[in-house]
Amino acid sequence: MMQFGRTDLLDETDEMVRHRTEKDKEKLKESSGIDFREKRKGRFIVTEIRVDDQGAEKIGRKSGTYITLTAPGLTADDSEGFVELEQLLADKLREMHAPLGLPENPKVLVVGLGNRSVTPDAVGPYAIDRLQEAVPAFYSEDPGLIAYAAGVTGQTGFETSDFVNALASKISPDLIIVIDALAARDSTRLCRTIQLTDTGIHPGSGVGNERKEISKEVLGIPVTAIGVPTVVDGPVMVSDAIESVFNYIAAKIEEKNSPSSALAVTPWLHDKTKETDKKVLKPIFGEWSQWSKEDKQKLFEEVLSSDEQSMFVTPKETDTWILQYATLVSSGVVKWLSPATPGSESPAPAI
Amino acid sequence: MMQFGRTDLLDETDEMVRHRTEKDKEKLKESSGIDFREKRKGRFIVTEIRVDDQGAEKIGRKSGTYITLTAPGLTADDSEGFVELEQLLADKLREMHAPLGLPENPKVLVVGLGNRSVTPDAVGPYAIDRLQEAVPAFYSEDPGLIAYAAGVTGQTGFETSDFVNALASKISPDLIIVIDALAARDSTRLCRTIQLTDTGIHPGSGVGNERKEISKEVLGIPVTAIGVPTVVDGPVMVSDAIESVFNYIAAKIEEKNSPSSALAVTPWLHDKTKETDKKVLKPIFGEWSQWSKEDKQKLFEEVLSSDEQSMFVTPKETDTWILQYATLVSSGVVKWLSPATPGSESPAPAI
Amino acid sequence: MMQFGRTDLLDETDEMVRHRTEKDKEKLKESSGIDFREKRKGRFIVTEIRVDDQGAEKIGRKSGTYITLTAPGLTADDSEGFVELEQLLADKLREMHAPLGLPENPKVLVVGLGNRSVTPDAVGPYAIDRLQEAVPAFYSEDPGLIAYAAGVTGQTGFETSDFVNALASKISPDLIIVIDALAARDSTRLCRTIQLTDTGIHPGSGVGNERKEISKEVLGIPVTAIGVPTVVDGPVMVSDAIESVFNYIAAKIEEKNSPSSALAVTPWLHDKTKETDKKVLKPIFGEWSQWSKEDKQKLFEEVLSSDEQSMFVTPKETDTWILQYATLVSSGVVKWLSPATPGSESPAPAI
Amino acid sequence: MMQFGRTDLLDETDEMVRHRTEKDKEKLKESSGIDFREKRKGRFIVTEIRVDDQGAEKIGRKSGTYITLTAPGLTADDSEGFVELEQLLADKLREMHAPLGLPENPKVLVVGLGNRSVTPDAVGPYAIDRLQEAVPAFYSEDPGLIAYAAGVTGQTGFETSDFVNALASKISPDLIIVIDALAARDSTRLCRTIQLTDTGIHPGSGVGNERKEISKEVLGIPVTAIGVPTVVDGPVMVSDAIESVFNYIAAKIEEKNSPSSALAVTPWLHDKTKETDKKVLKPIFGEWSQWSKEDKQKLFEEVLSSDEQSMFVTPKETDTWILQYATLVSSGVVKWLSPATPGSESPAPAI
Repeated sequence: MMQFGRTDLLDETDEMVRHRTEKDKEKLKESSGIDFREKRKGRFIVTEIRVDDQGAEKIGRKSGTYITLTAPGLTADDSEGFVELEQLLADKLREMHAPLGLPENPKVLVVGLGNRSVTPDAVGPYAIDRLQEAVPAFYSEDPGLIAYAAGVTGQTGFETSDFVNALASKISPDLIIVIDALAARDSTRLCRTIQLTDTGIHPGSGVGNERKEISKEVLGIPVTAIGVPTVVDGPVMVSDAIESVFNYIAAKIEEKNSPSSALAVTPWLHDKTKETDKKVLKPIFGEWSQWSKEDKQKLFEEVLSSDEQSMFVTPKETDTWILQYATLVSSGVVKWLSPATPGSESPAPAI
Repeated sequence: MMQFGRTDLLDETDEMVRHRTEKDKEKLKESSGIDFREKRKGRFIVTEIRVDDQGAEKIGRKSGTYITLTAPGLTADDSEGFVELEQLLADKLREMHAPLGLPENPKVLVVGLGNRSVTPDAVGPYAIDRLQEAVPAFYSEDPGLIAYAAGVTGQTGFETSDFVNALASKISPDLIIVIDALAARDSTRLCRTIQLTDTGIHPGSGVGNERKEISKEVLGIPVTAIGVPTVVDGPVMVSDAIESVFNYIAAKIEEKNSPSSALAVTPWLHDKTKETDKKVLKPIFGEWSQWSKEDKQKLFEEVLSSDEQSMFVTPKETDTWILQYATLVSSGVVKWLSPATPGSESPAPAI
Repeated sequence: MMQFGRTDLLDETDEMVRHRTEKDKEKLKESSGIDFREKRKGRFIVTEIRVDDQGAEKIGRKSGTYITLTAPGLTADDSEGFVELEQLLADKLREMHAPLGLPENPKVLVVGLGNRSVTPDAVGPYAIDRLQEAVPAFYSEDPGLIAYAAGVTGQTGFETSDFVNALASKISPDLIIVIDALAARDSTRLCRTIQLTDTGIHPGSGVGNERKEISKEVLGIPVTAIGVPTVVDGPVMVSDAIESVFNYIAAKIEEKNSPSSALAVTPWLHDKTKETDKKVLKPIFGEWSQWSKEDKQKLFEEVLSSDEQSMFVTPKETDTWILQYATLVSSGVVKWLSPATPGSESPAPAI
Repeated sequence: MMQFGRTDLLDETDEMVRHRTEKDKEKLKESSGIDFREKRKGRFIVTEIRVDDQGAEKIGRKSGTYITLTAPGLTADDSEGFVELEQLLADKLREMHAPLGLPENPKVLVVGLGNRSVTPDAVGPYAIDRLQEAVPAFYSEDPGLIAYAAGVTGQTGFETSDFVNALASKISPDLIIVIDALAARDSTRLCRTIQLTDTGIHPGSGVGNERKEISKEVLGIPVTAIGVPTVVDGPVMVSDAIESVFNYIAAKIEEKNSPSSALAVTPWLHDKTKETDKKVLKPIFGEWSQWSKEDKQKLFEEVLSSDEQSMFVTPKETDTWILQYATLVSSGVVKWLSPATPGSESPAPAI
């Protein structure tokens, strides 16, 4: 069975989610220890969060860089959009790795995590399939690119982190990249986001098993994690849906009380940062409507039967999305590694 | 993209769903035109509904037989359970086809519907893959078993019903069996149900395109549809979840007001036929909690953004389930067709 | 099991093979009823043979056009070569179909023959996989492109020709294209040749089953066959090898008797049209060396055990070749069908 | 590209092949340092060769045990035969590993070698796919079975032997098993043989790269290699075929000179150990017919163009064979590892 949520990504943590109204973001930027920047880059939104030790303590996460590339309008067959996103990924990989001072032709170990036979978990192994076609091009005397799918512990019998550790010990790469599918906490991010971090991944995260993390601290080698959210857990989807209902009804009521046109409703529906006046909901939805989204989500997690818990929500074209992202991530990594590629010679874009 | 819900199955229609309390079922049986029987058979529940012309008019569905085999406790790795369900399917196919007076070695055309590259839609094509291994065994002078995956119109460029029609005209089989994945209206049925009907399927159902149905009326050849529900649409899952929450909270409140033990809650939670006293919910959940499940579902369908609509809910082990059912349905059909198989010589069990 | 050799291709028939020395080709051109042209086009060799009724009787084959595109230096990873060959295929399809007077947006039924699960036989089904991605682009009110893999009779239980016939009756296309893997009679052609003909294919060829052919005569619709030789039968490979040995040894002996340099040997080795003086071989290889290649091949077919007969010879990178050709043929067909493609607007090149 | 012939198997070395007449086998047994035993076991032939240091020096191979299980009549769809061969494999694994004194629940690392995307090379990776389903059953506190497909160096960028070394260092298994496809030197062995040895494998064998071998000497852990011959190189097949022709013709001539019936020819054809009187061949086939098979093979290797060299010969049902052997080898290993299996409790059979 799939076990998502292995990568430590900051952007969706409670702390961040709770502060996503414009005012709160401002506050977050001002707070010491956390540097939060969000810019639009063509059709993409790039969020970069840098957390120092002080900030790490404050939000209970590891210090490091967390970059999120979001493509709000992307569809599974938008090949042009994927090409642009691929270039953006290559650019960000270059920026992110610049401070590491890697040698000119670095030796990079790329490991794909996840279960090849469960489609939404297969981004990692599929990306490795594609990457392996590029391996010979980086092989002169020594290999420059080494690519493996790690399999999952339930099938290999071996801890994924131990697998990476074993290879890293023998190969001594200059950098380790891990590619993984993620579970999103927000269904609008599904298959429309790539997340990068230099804090590594924690397969045993939440289980308090520090020893098992794949990170620079443990391996002595820089680790970059590339994650693509491909599923949403059932309770999250339900609570998202309730939120939509509440917003919709609240808007309807406000509309009745104001001269605004019906046209105003639709775009508003998805403005998740807008503070709706929830008080109007109380007569229809009772006390419950005044609860925070997090509290409702906790209720769903508590109540939903194990049957419903063991389901996940995935886009209808999930098979196409997964193949697209596997190609995109693989090509982005190759583009970054290939100094002669025209696109990569351009100066790193400032965001 | 997947387009589920092609098969005309009675068991989950509004009319049936609304009458599932014990008392209502009794009433349904008494009503003229509809013969409703539900029996337990080992670990399985077998529901058989026979609708005559009078009943058909009453519920707005085609007259015919609708059989549902449900395996409440089934898990994806319960190979014993799958073998028993396979035998049950073979038995039911025999019962169902007995009145047709097929020749001793009938010529049967089996067509798998659905998109091979979208996992939860692939039950049909995968079942055909397995069935094709059995084809030579039924080939003497003439073929006894002809098996094709129809593909989907978006990929072949040809209407699925026209495809079946073209083959049927040329082959003149004694019987046509179509195998398809379905969207369930109830998440507890997901991958735990097989549905059989002799009313054929209507790829254009709901679009008012009578001409495109795959049925005895159109083809002049009996058509049996075998369907496996593998996904639940988003709105359904959300409304199921809300129902669970309401039941849970109502039970908590009743519990507080009664001397019942905590142990009583869990089994109760899933007794979907029990009439909970919804009135206790009003203070917390407002007017909304008094709505019918169908009304809430309609609200979700109206409100959920197209983004969320285009997702579906599927079990985490969906890849395993699909392969299991493909094998089961294929083997069930072969078992029914093979007169020498011991199991098939046994007298048709009465339910 | 694979049953190759279904397509009726002239270029390798005994009559043609026997006349491949330059002098004989001249003679062939002069003979009435057969128009034989061979031109070099960049790195490719294009052979076009047109046979009228008189010629057909002479060589015992159907009248019609037979075009062979050969790429002598092609390797499995030569993506540039494949792109050029694809354009050449599109050009030849245009030339070949020009006399048919197809409507502007013709309705074309493309059928892939062969067994998907036997790699060297899978060119047809794999090409259909790729072609199906292009189907929606040709769908306006009616489908312009309809694409099916026919499966093999041993798996579907239905004759391939009957399958095509059934679809053709229902669809009434303007043109039928069949794509198939072939067994070559010459190992140097393996995966380096595409063969086109308008004479259709004869799945029952050699079995005297005229009724089962897929051709304009039977269906009343023009049929174009696209074939790619992917295997060589064991006896052919052995007899090719013996031929190479004899040529090699004869050259060595002649070399000793002349002042020519060693360098002269290698290029000569593969000039299969050169008439070597076989007499010098008699002392070493006996009477046998004076036999014709065809006679030796017959001996091998007679002698080789059924074990050795049931093997075939295939290139080591066969999986890559098959995927490349599936893409090439699919893209070539799409390019021909797409009038707006720049490449296709160019005037048909004369060869 | 596939690079077969990685496993060091004694049974087909020149030394062994040259001594396969009954008389010579006797001689071989008597010679010091080599213990050669061949017994029939039901429908299988079991060859066991034990070579000590003295024998190793004599034949230029490593000392150790070499076991070959041959199933002369096996066909790809003989499921009963595969089950028997599977049990034989499990029995031989038990015998072979008995002297190692492994702990009761040994920790075993199984590595599949070969290229998953080249069918005849995929026995190793496919066997691992199946084995991974059994991994959880051997997992209590620690894993008992760890299973990985190593990939090929051209795709991973990492030496296969280094990969095994890296895992072995981290895991410290009690035993390493490698599973690999082989190139046979004798086409009758193709897909009808399993070969076992405790001498490990030498991916760099023939290249004089001792450091890269996967063996007990290098890793300090016992290594068992399981190999299945799935292809024959072109030159081998040609020389086998010539041999068949010579034997056939010689038999024909002898027949004419003797009163023997035609019926006597067929069984004789495959008796490869019978010494035919080659002298009768000289008038027809010249001096060449008096050469040894090895000398002819060398000529073919020298003469065949690189084109023909880069082909291999494989059975027509190769896809089925590969899947059958992947299942067989995987199940044989599991059966050996499972002490509770009835078959494995039986005393080790003497051969």
